[in-house]
Amino acid sequence: MEPILDIAIALPEKGSRELLRSLHRQLRAAIIDGRLQAGLRLPPTRALARGLGISRNTVIAAYDMLLSEGYVEGRRGAGTFVADVRPRLERRKAPLQVDPVADKRLAPIWRGWRPLAETCSGETYRYDFVAGMPDSEFPFDIWQRLSTRAARRVARSPVHEHDPAGEPVLRRAIASHVSFVRAVACQPEDIVVTAGTRQAVDLIARILVTPGETEVALEDPGYGPTRRSFVGAGAKVLSIPVDEEGLVVDRLPPSARVICVTPSHQFPLGVAMSARRRTALLDFAESFGAVIVEDDYDSEFRHSGMPLDALQTLDRSGSVFYVGTFSKSMFPALRMGFVVAPEWARYALTLAKQLNDQHSPLINQLALADFIAESHLARHVRKMRRIYSARHEALRSALETHLGDHLRPFRAHAGVHLAAALTAPGDEQAVVGAAAARGIRVEDIARYASRDTAQRGFVFGFGMIEAKHIEPAIAELSGLGFGTI
Amino acid sequence: MEPILDIAIALPEKGSRELLRSLHRQLRAAIIDGRLQAGLRLPPTRALARGLGISRNTVIAAYDMLLSEGYVEGRRGAGTFVADVRPRLERRKAPLQVDPVADKRLAPIWRGWRPLAETCSGETYRYDFVAGMPDSEFPFDIWQRLSTRAARRVARSPVHEHDPAGEPVLRRAIASHVSFVRAVACQPEDIVVTAGTRQAVDLIARILVTPGETEVALEDPGYGPTRRSFVGAGAKVLSIPVDEEGLVVDRLPPSARVICVTPSHQFPLGVAMSARRRTALLDFAESFGAVIVEDDYDSEFRHSGMPLDALQTLDRSGSVFYVGTFSKSMFPALRMGFVVAPEWARYALTLAKQLNDQHSPLINQLALADFIAESHLARHVRKMRRIYSARHEALRSALETHLGDHLRPFRAHAGVHLAAALTAPGDEQAVVGAAAARGIRVEDIARYASRDTAQRGFVFGFGMIEAKHIEPAIAELSGLGFGTI
Repeated sequence: MEPILDIAIALPEKGSRELLRSLHRQLRAAIIDGRLQAGLRLPPTRALARGLGISRNTVIAAYDMLLSEGYVEGRRGAGTFVADVRPRLERRKAPLQVDPVADKRLAPIWRGWRPLAETCSGETYRYDFVAGMPDSEFPFDIWQRLSTRAARRVARSPVHEHDPAGEPVLRRAIASHVSFVRAVACQPEDIVVTAGTRQAVDLIARILVTPGETEVALEDPGYGPTRRSFVGAGAKVLSIPVDEEGLVVDRLPPSARVICVTPSHQFPLGVAMSARRRTALLDFAESFGAVIVEDDYDSEFRHSGMPLDALQTLDRSGSVFYVGTFSKSMFPALRMGFVVAPEWARYALTLAKQLNDQHSPLINQLALADFIAESHLARHVRKMRRIYSARHEALRSALETHLGDHLRPFRAHAGVHLAAALTAPGDEQAVVGAAAARGIRVEDIARYASRDTAQRGFVFGFGMIEAKHIEPAIAELSGLGFGTI
Repeated sequence: MEPILDIAIALPEKGSRELLRSLHRQLRAAIIDGRLQAGLRLPPTRALARGLGISRNTVIAAYDMLLSEGYVEGRRGAGTFVADVRPRLERRKAPLQVDPVADKRLAPIWRGWRPLAETCSGETYRYDFVAGMPDSEFPFDIWQRLSTRAARRVARSPVHEHDPAGEPVLRRAIASHVSFVRAVACQPEDIVVTAGTRQAVDLIARILVTPGETEVALEDPGYGPTRRSFVGAGAKVLSIPVDEEGLVVDRLPPSARVICVTPSHQFPLGVAMSARRRTALLDFAESFGAVIVEDDYDSEFRHSGMPLDALQTLDRSGSVFYVGTFSKSMFPALRMGFVVAPEWARYALTLAKQLNDQHSPLINQLALADFIAESHLARHVRKMRRIYSARHEALRSALETHLGDHLRPFRAHAGVHLAAALTAPGDEQAVVGAAAARGIRVEDIARYASRDTAQRGFVFGFGMIEAKHIEPAIAELSGLGFGTI
């Protein structure tokens, strides 16, 4: 037997009102999305009713509703036909001339931008030195056990609104975690839980920037999304150079109101900000009433030496936002991080978070609190630190062996990437391209610079490459044109 | 035996460098957070080494490091003493004079604001008619099963970056879901996954508003956080009245560039925007190049009648952002929602999402995709629709019986709250206060208005009150001063 209609209709088992609603909706959806095309004759009500095993009155009522809405037309004596709804839906059939980046309905500052190129969009490389990504190793089984326990707790408690700054149990866990690992002295009420470093910086930008006015100093080379967040917030962005002691504080103009730094492990150079630069930066902030955003994204992975005190630890004027993330120490797609906020900014930052997304997902927050409190985080970080330290060592050694004449690694004591400067001018992009052609991904420092930078060389991430592959990869890389530079 | 130190020290089992680092860090943390107070004499190195079962050299090295950092002082012949680190950390010991809302380091627009009062901060009421919260009923067991499966998938796949607009599988599920339930014709690529309605509106505000210029029309009374997001983005906010047909479109000034509406179930009045107002609003947008934000937060719960077409369905000029959420249909603390964006805004919205939080948490996205695709969402919505419809009916009937002389419910066909207008002027706040004193929570409409509104009366949410409690609650409420108004 031929089907009565070319579309599948699935109807509920119950009451006629529900039946009618469902039938009407399915027919309408099929007309709108074109499965039932204009001009098609709908089956007679009697036939459709029999075919679907429902009362004819229900089908009549559904047709009447479609008729009154203009989705079908009745031609006297000829039956019911699908109306031509294209004029109504023409946008879909014949798309408007759309300028996807410069429509004047967008605020000017958002025109001409496209989403950032993803550094790691799923291609695979034989040897991958991409920066900013950790290893995929993570105890997901433990995480899911804690999530399930958290979900049970949520299921048992009545629905209510939650503190936008984060669940108290998580803020306590984070406060004690950063006090311990980074000597960042803070209380739970100083913590605002965020969706990683991104949201932390984005919310800070929002509450500090007066559009068109506020001058914000950023490291150059530096982390692209931070720059875009501040530009998006309307800031005037100043590019400040970085050398082997970190941000060149002397180059800050007194007009800079916000200064963003990665003092533990500069992104991308990997250097630590020296003690004297730290002092100078804090003095600058105190003198000029400026604010420091300290992004401490991967210093848990310490390979050698003792960490210098965090700016937040040394700060005496409430000038520092300390930003931490679980993207590197756990996994990036978790989207969890935090800010240790100075007291004067706590309300504004909490409100910004509240307006932005109300609060971070509850089950994730509770699971993370347990993950920290039950020492799973510390254990995982210890384990990964050993792994990353071995890779760091292998990388240093391979660079020395194979590229010692061309590259000089920057001093770095922590983190998941190492940068190396070219010891003579050269064409990094040619090397990057030649490497990519052989299945090796490595990035040049210039990629992270907003314009010409004095820093030339390469960034070697080792989150995604095993220690044993590092030496062969660098050996292969050394054959790719370094000699001709 | 007396403990050697008043703090617990836990040391790793392994290498001396690790031991030293750990000991140093724990001592420093204890000094910074005050567990080891200024002036305290540290135990002699020999005694501490013995007590901890480690080599004396390690203790000496740790003390030396603390000494060089200024955390301890050596007094000749007298031993090692905890230094007075208060000057260094004075911020914590003697807080600066902090103005928590008006520090001049905040952008002016963010000064003077505090986080929004939570409507539901955990207090419990005998009878709770708070608006905007769903019932706590939800199949958390299914949710966790799907989350666990998603986590296994994530664990098996290499770390890579993800589409800020959302995982393809989730965008497909959402697109087919809204096509079906709301006849919103869209493709997966039109969808941007967000952290609920909040983030959706917040990101839309960001890409559309030129600070200090863009005029944004909002329903008044309306949803407070939407107003705050637009104010925070620098918009000039216009309050447009609402009547029984929804937004009074005639009152829109031609200068309005963005118009935010809740056409399915106006928040808080509950009315549906009439067909002619819908047409008029779309004509307005088309004529003036304005943009409509259609917030469809709870229309899944339909109690009677057929829904009018969404503005997005009727739109011919690519003027509509359709915003949906899973906060009501699933649970609010999940923080998941989406935007169906017009093509010209897709890049900007995706970039805004990317800068804001990179993407929504991956495991949650994958679990939600399965929850929709495997019909758990449709099943849960069907179940809750029956429950809410019964409450809606009970509420209408109780209002008629007990308060028919004083209140006239607004027409509403969907959702989880019902509003009722006072039929004569009265003191709603007195009633709200008297009710609260008796453990009944009900809100007045004026609470949602930005200033004097013609709409006077009450909002009755029924997400948190069972059907059987509604009649007794309204009966009790009717004794609280309505007669004297």
